Amino acid sequence: MLKTLSVLHTPELLHALASMGHGDEIAIVDANFPAVSMAQRLVRLDGADLAAALTACLHLMPLDNFVKEPAFRMQQVHAPDEIPEVQKSCQKIIDQAEGKHVALSGISREAFYERTRKAFVVLVTSEQRPYGCILLKKGVVFPPGTN
Amino acid sequence: MLKTLSVLHTPELLHALASMGHGDEIAIVDANFPAVSMAQRLVRLDGADLAAALTACLHLMPLDNFVKEPAFRMQQVHAPDEIPEVQKSCQKIIDQAEGKHVALSGISREAFYERTRKAFVVLVTSEQRPYGCILLKKGVVFPPGTN
Repeated sequence: MLKTLSVLHTPELLHALASMGHGDEIAIVDANFPAVSMAQRLVRLDGADLAAALTACLHLMPLDNFVKEPAFRMQQVHAPDEIPEVQKSCQKIIDQAEGKHVALSGISREAFYERTRKAFVVLVTSEQRPYGCILLKKGVVFPPGTN
Repeated sequence: MLKTLSVLHTPELLHALASMGHGDEIAIVDANFPAVSMAQRLVRLDGADLAAALTACLHLMPLDNFVKEPAFRMQQVHAPDEIPEVQKSCQKIIDQAEGKHVALSGISREAFYERTRKAFVVLVTSEQRPYGCILLKKGVVFPPGTN
């Protein structure tokens, strides 16, 4: 454990987040996602749900504001435009962390898989609700006092 | 780079600090210290001086308040009781981070070597001043709102 951080900021998660640069992507996925077979780099947060994992990431990582769509959600196969509760809670956490509304863009299951295979890291949670899968693009951290 | 942290919070340093538990020790040493040959685990902060490295560590790591001596400095061989400037600056940083005076206890060069060989991690800096070597014992991070 470390001051100013939470128990979810594990050594492996901190290493991954700090290794990421501008534009690198992290997929945060539920317990059913085929993470081990898709990830180039895998970090486990067993025991944490999606909201807790997302909160831990956004405490340290800004979203990319150089692009229009820095955050994605996996669309439900049977209802692409219906946003499930597990993703609605993520939208609230993102908006709070960024201090403004940054929409989760819906992409198909297959598109999500394709993007996850290219992601810098996949963070596996114990989220049990289906479609508990989002993907974020890291932004720039500016020197203190600038923006 | 990450929000709330500095450029010196490298992936490797974050991983090491978060891996340490209560009572584990970190040696932060100068550029002449035989770190590679002594360390069980080594992290490099090339380019940083001792004060900057210490500040980065204490931003995240509390000192152990279960023991009387949680911080040590390598005594000068020719003048064990004379505290060099490089160590005086560390004393100020420690006191500020801990919010109270926590003395750097002087130990001999040989005792410092012995302790470093057992330390959880050795953090090598580019400090060029001699005797820029200290050793810290990690304390407990309590849940938010408790102490």
